[in-house]
Amino acid sequence: MKKALVFGGNSYEHEISIVSAIALKKVIKKELIFIFLDESGEFWLIDDANMKSTYFAKREYRKAKKLFLLKGGFHKKTLFGFESIGKVCVINLVHGGDGEDGRLASMFDFYGVSFVGPRTEVSVLSFNKLYTKALADMCGVKALAYSFVTKKARKLAKPDAYPVIVKPCRLGSSIGVSVVKSEKELDYALDVAFEFDDAVLIEPFVENVREFNVAGARVGSEIVYSNIEEPKKEGYLDFEKKYLDFSRTQEVAAAGVEEQLAAKLKESFAKIYSFGFDGAIIRCDFFVVDNEVYLNEVNPIPGSLANYLFGDFNALLEGVSHSLPTPRRIKVDYKYINEIKSAKGKL
Amino acid sequence: MKKALVFGGNSYEHEISIVSAIALKKVIKKELIFIFLDESGEFWLIDDANMKSTYFAKREYRKAKKLFLLKGGFHKKTLFGFESIGKVCVINLVHGGDGEDGRLASMFDFYGVSFVGPRTEVSVLSFNKLYTKALADMCGVKALAYSFVTKKARKLAKPDAYPVIVKPCRLGSSIGVSVVKSEKELDYALDVAFEFDDAVLIEPFVENVREFNVAGARVGSEIVYSNIEEPKKEGYLDFEKKYLDFSRTQEVAAAGVEEQLAAKLKESFAKIYSFGFDGAIIRCDFFVVDNEVYLNEVNPIPGSLANYLFGDFNALLEGVSHSLPTPRRIKVDYKYINEIKSAKGKL
Repeated sequence: MKKALVFGGNSYEHEISIVSAIALKKVIKKELIFIFLDESGEFWLIDDANMKSTYFAKREYRKAKKLFLLKGGFHKKTLFGFESIGKVCVINLVHGGDGEDGRLASMFDFYGVSFVGPRTEVSVLSFNKLYTKALADMCGVKALAYSFVTKKARKLAKPDAYPVIVKPCRLGSSIGVSVVKSEKELDYALDVAFEFDDAVLIEPFVENVREFNVAGARVGSEIVYSNIEEPKKEGYLDFEKKYLDFSRTQEVAAAGVEEQLAAKLKESFAKIYSFGFDGAIIRCDFFVVDNEVYLNEVNPIPGSLANYLFGDFNALLEGVSHSLPTPRRIKVDYKYINEIKSAKGKL
Repeated sequence: MKKALVFGGNSYEHEISIVSAIALKKVIKKELIFIFLDESGEFWLIDDANMKSTYFAKREYRKAKKLFLLKGGFHKKTLFGFESIGKVCVINLVHGGDGEDGRLASMFDFYGVSFVGPRTEVSVLSFNKLYTKALADMCGVKALAYSFVTKKARKLAKPDAYPVIVKPCRLGSSIGVSVVKSEKELDYALDVAFEFDDAVLIEPFVENVREFNVAGARVGSEIVYSNIEEPKKEGYLDFEKKYLDFSRTQEVAAAGVEEQLAAKLKESFAKIYSFGFDGAIIRCDFFVVDNEVYLNEVNPIPGSLANYLFGDFNALLEGVSHSLPTPRRIKVDYKYINEIKSAKGKL
């Protein structure tokens, strides 16, 4: 089955999704179909030759062929109706809204499209940082303490101690995130965060915390782990820096993590992954404090699928695409209606 | 805007959704459009006159007009393409899978269809009974203690004490639920539950617990509460009994609950509803133990929308349909691509 990269979306991360797709085009060795989702919710079939960021920025994609998502997959419009572009295995590369909030996953499952990416349930749990705390808890993995405040109740935001980190609940890629060193900086940070979401998470900001990224996916019955990366931080990674991060294609050397810690990180990754991420290549970002592993966040669609962390990304992707969960389909037999009808006459 | 009742779905509750729709047809005074979602994922426009359960059980709906969900709403196929059936406000009445698991909500939000019903996030949280525990916790409402076991790890199911109640995590309407009085009954109850889901919740079964149902919805800035019902139980409500329950259209008298308890129940309802159920008419089922309120479950699309609990259901529905949340839409300006391009030449 051919693979189709779906990217774009109505999201603050729309542009980095384009960058991410261009990066993956360089990495993936097999033939790919490119499907762009514009901000208005329309799908476009993009020629290989047009996979350049300016093509999208100049909105030249509007000259491309429009696609429609219908039962069985993507379709082109023909003179008298619709024609399937053929069975494809979608790779969901829509970072942020549409892609990571469960919308596309819901649609793909509904229409019977096979796809690499997080399913609806775990998308919802990992898209909202508040729910990620619950996810960690359900998986038996530690997470940092937090408080949570909504726009309506913002005056209740009263951290016990500073510095804290203020994050909109529903955004990735550090958008709207601030480190707050003292009470007088809090108001501005909340203003910024509430620009992007009505709900905000406040966590203690642990200075010089060690951070580790582990990516992986289930292939058959085994979880394939990536190299463990200890990302270099200059202060706090901001959006522009992360943006460039999404275009990475070069393999990263393993972090040289002590064996025992590496085992702990992998064990935590496995607990989270096994909770329902089958079919997706995800990256978990962990903090390590006093030798204890804490989940910071789950990236269920990491930038360029974290290809740079894997020794053989192409083999991984192929493996995952053959290890996709199948949604439960139910056979309706109208047993109850028939029984009640025969017991009571017409209903 | 006309209202369209969407019902059916690929779900164990497919048939009760039909019953539920027929019940609502009797209750709703305004003109309604009926859209049936069959088990295979196709939508059908159903004539008023055909809204009888046998019409569906005999699969006569296949002679009806097929509908397609595209940008802006439902469309009919015409000779040369597709034609909108006009702007409608959907009432999501698909109980169980497709309707309550966030799939249809995702699709309606994606395609810009306004709808009465739970949004994706809270659908996911209330569809899975394990997540409902986390939901209660995040809302500051108590829930009964529980243990959780997956099919793979079923030998870990070892309740401390009996009786317990064994429930598949993802089903409503009591399907696959058993009360287990002793260890020797556990295995069979797990077999039954695992028929329907790979994950199972085990809770203590509190004998003679008082149970109360409260329904409601936000209209404008106020929550409208239903009468509080104390459902009569004969042992444990089974599927057949619940099935008939979905066809209720007659107003229920208030339970005559003590004022203080009623206030507590409403306060708990408000905490849960305010977490993200705007746009939906939901029913929360609570237990009361030692005068403390515990959330049992959230029905984000209760049978026939719990119309029988409200004094003026038509006014409520009208009010809710004018109080729908609007999904956040993002304006993409290609600022980053343009900046990087001008800084670095072509990307």
